[in-house]
This record gives sequence, C-alpha cells and structure tokens, in this order.
Amino acid sequence: MSLVLDPAAQDLLFREARTANTFSSEPVTDEQIAAIYDLVKYGPTAFNQSPLRITLVRSPEARERLVKHMAEGNQPKTATAPLVAILSTDHEFHEELPQLFPHAPGIADMFFSERPVREQAGTLNATLQAAYFIIGVRAAGLSAGPMTGLDFAGVQKEFLDDDHAPLMVINIGKPGDDAWFPRSPRLEQEQVITTI
Amino acid sequence: MSLVLDPAAQDLLFREARTANTFSSEPVTDEQIAAIYDLVKYGPTAFNQSPLRITLVRSPEARERLVKHMAEGNQPKTATAPLVAILSTDHEFHEELPQLFPHAPGIADMFFSERPVREQAGTLNATLQAAYFIIGVRAAGLSAGPMTGLDFAGVQKEFLDDDHAPLMVINIGKPGDDAWFPRSPRLEQEQVITTI
Repeated sequence: MSLVLDPAAQDLLFREARTANTFSSEPVTDEQIAAIYDLVKYGPTAFNQSPLRITLVRSPEARERLVKHMAEGNQPKTATAPLVAILSTDHEFHEELPQLFPHAPGIADMFFSERPVREQAGTLNATLQAAYFIIGVRAAGLSAGPMTGLDFAGVQKEFLDDDHAPLMVINIGKPGDDAWFPRSPRLEQEQVITTI
Repeated sequence: MSLVLDPAAQDLLFREARTANTFSSEPVTDEQIAAIYDLVKYGPTAFNQSPLRITLVRSPEARERLVKHMAEGNQPKTATAPLVAILSTDHEFHEELPQLFPHAPGIADMFFSERPVREQAGTLNATLQAAYFIIGVRAAGLSAGPMTGLDFAGVQKEFLDDDHAPLMVINIGKPGDDAWFPRSPRLEQEQVITTI
C-alpha cells in the first residue's frame, strides 16, 4: 500500500464519489457548510492569499435569478439541488494579506500592487480552493455538481461586483435517483506522467 | 459532527498537513506517484477532460536545469526535495476526449474546436486537478510544496512544448527539520461566505 489515507476515505473522496446530476430533497445546512469551510480553509494557496469567496444561494428568488444564467442543460439540476453555491475569486484579496500573512506585511505591495497580477494569481489560487471545496463537500458525505456551463458575465452582474469574478457554480446535496452516468474512463498513467 | 470523513483523514489531508520547505532524504518512489495518480484521477473535471500532465524530474541533470528557472527563494528547496514534479496543462486535451467521454463523441468538435477555449477550460480544469494531486500527495503521507514563483516561459521552453503550459512546480517528500513556519491565520467564515 503506497497510500496512508485509509481506503474508506479514499472511496468517500475519490473512488466512489461522483458528480451528481439529481439530488434528494434532504436540506444542506449552514452547519455542514461551516464544517466544510473549517476543513478546507487549510488547503494551501500562494502566500496564503485565500482568494476564494462563496455565495450560498438560499432564497427561492435568488435561485430563480441564477437558473436563468445557467446553460440549458444545467438549469434543471440548478433549479432542484438542495443548495447551490457560486464560487468566485476576490481580485482584491491583497487587502486581507496583512491578516493572512502577518509575518511579512510587505508582500501585498511587493507582489500584488497590480490588478492584472492579482487577477491571474487570484484565479489560480481560488481554483485550487474550489477543488479543496469539492473535496470538502464529499468529506461531508454530500455530492458536489460543479458547473462551468453558465453565463459568467451575467452571474457576475447579477450577484457579484467588479472585484469578484465567478469561477463556477456548484450544486450540493445528497444524490437522488439515477444521479449519475457510469464512470467515464480516465487516462492511463503513461498518458499523463513523463519522467525526465 | 457535520463531516463524515474520519478525523484522522481530516488531519492527514488538511488540518495537520503543511507545505514543506525542507525535506528528509527518503526517496519518493514511482509506486507512490502511481498510487497518487490512481486515486486523484477520479477527481471531477468538465466533460472529464482531464487536461493535467505531470513531468517527474528525476535526473540530476534535469533538476539542475529546472532550478535555474525557479525564483531565488524557491531554488534551495527545489534543489534538495526528494522529487520535483512540473504540473502542466495540455492545451490539446480534446484529442483524448473520444477516450475520456465516449458516450458523446461530438463534444470535442462542439465545444473545444478553438484553441483559446481549450486554453481557458484546460487551465481551469488542470488547476482543479493540481489541487487533487496536492491532496493525493498528502494521502500518501508525503508533504507537497507547490510553487508558482518561477519563470513559466523558461520552464515551458526548457521542458515542454507549445501545447503544454506549466501550471506550477511541486516539491514532494517527507518533511525535514524545521519544515514549516507556524500556521498562518485563515479568513473567518463571514469573510468568505455570503448567503443570498
């Protein structure tokens, strides 16, 4: 065994976890989301910049406004998932760096004074955090349904502001009937890994 | 308890796992990397596009060439880590879609015929996979040291080609002496999560 992580955890997070397309009616609570965040907030980002922001779409009115911006194939599941979250990148994440990286207060000015640099670094690091969040949803025994089939400009205008760019929308809940297709094949080791 | 994942696994992957700056001399084997890949390959990507590619830098000669392209502060750890991996995005990932998404053979043409679209989708999804890989390194009981402080164009030219863009370089191994600084603070729930 080359892995230390116990097999049940491997199954829960990767081997048996699947992207759900249908969900049960069981609610996803604020306590569950808080527990997920309190776990995945420790995932690493460059300079601990932690640029991911999470918008929980709880009101029926907000849900309705969101569904309109989703690609047609994503609309039914976004309309019916117990909880939907908009994940976004805060392009002004450097404002929190004195709190996040207190032992080197100069780094915000040294590396992140320019907006394009923050947008690029922020997008990369928030995307890492989005993956940690997906793993965290699974750690809570829930299925995640991450989607990038949506009108990004429309979602930004409807729910966010110029400093927050949407990354993806995630449906969250217990899987329902026929929640997924058969698992698609993955690439073989030799298609992915090269040794030099 | 809102999480289903057992506390030892939470600690291994998130709470006690840290980004290592020094490493022990214990080697990282091909078997460990294979086991990590065989776990994290199941992490979700859009249309199962799986655009992440991994270059293991095993020869001293290749390591020396890589170190030159790292930011000065990253050079000592990249020179001494038991194993270093270059993670990159394959911008021609659509060529593998017939294998990866066999039930809808038309999607490569439908969504990914244009290179800029592939670059954007590929970067996002490979970055998700980079995060899964970091989690997988931790699942193997190893520390990951992901770095974006490097000359990306230089690394691409030295080791990759026009179709493969570097995402980050990761040092991998068992932590050594004084491997990390004290844990930096994370953002509070209310700084990250908004409910609408």
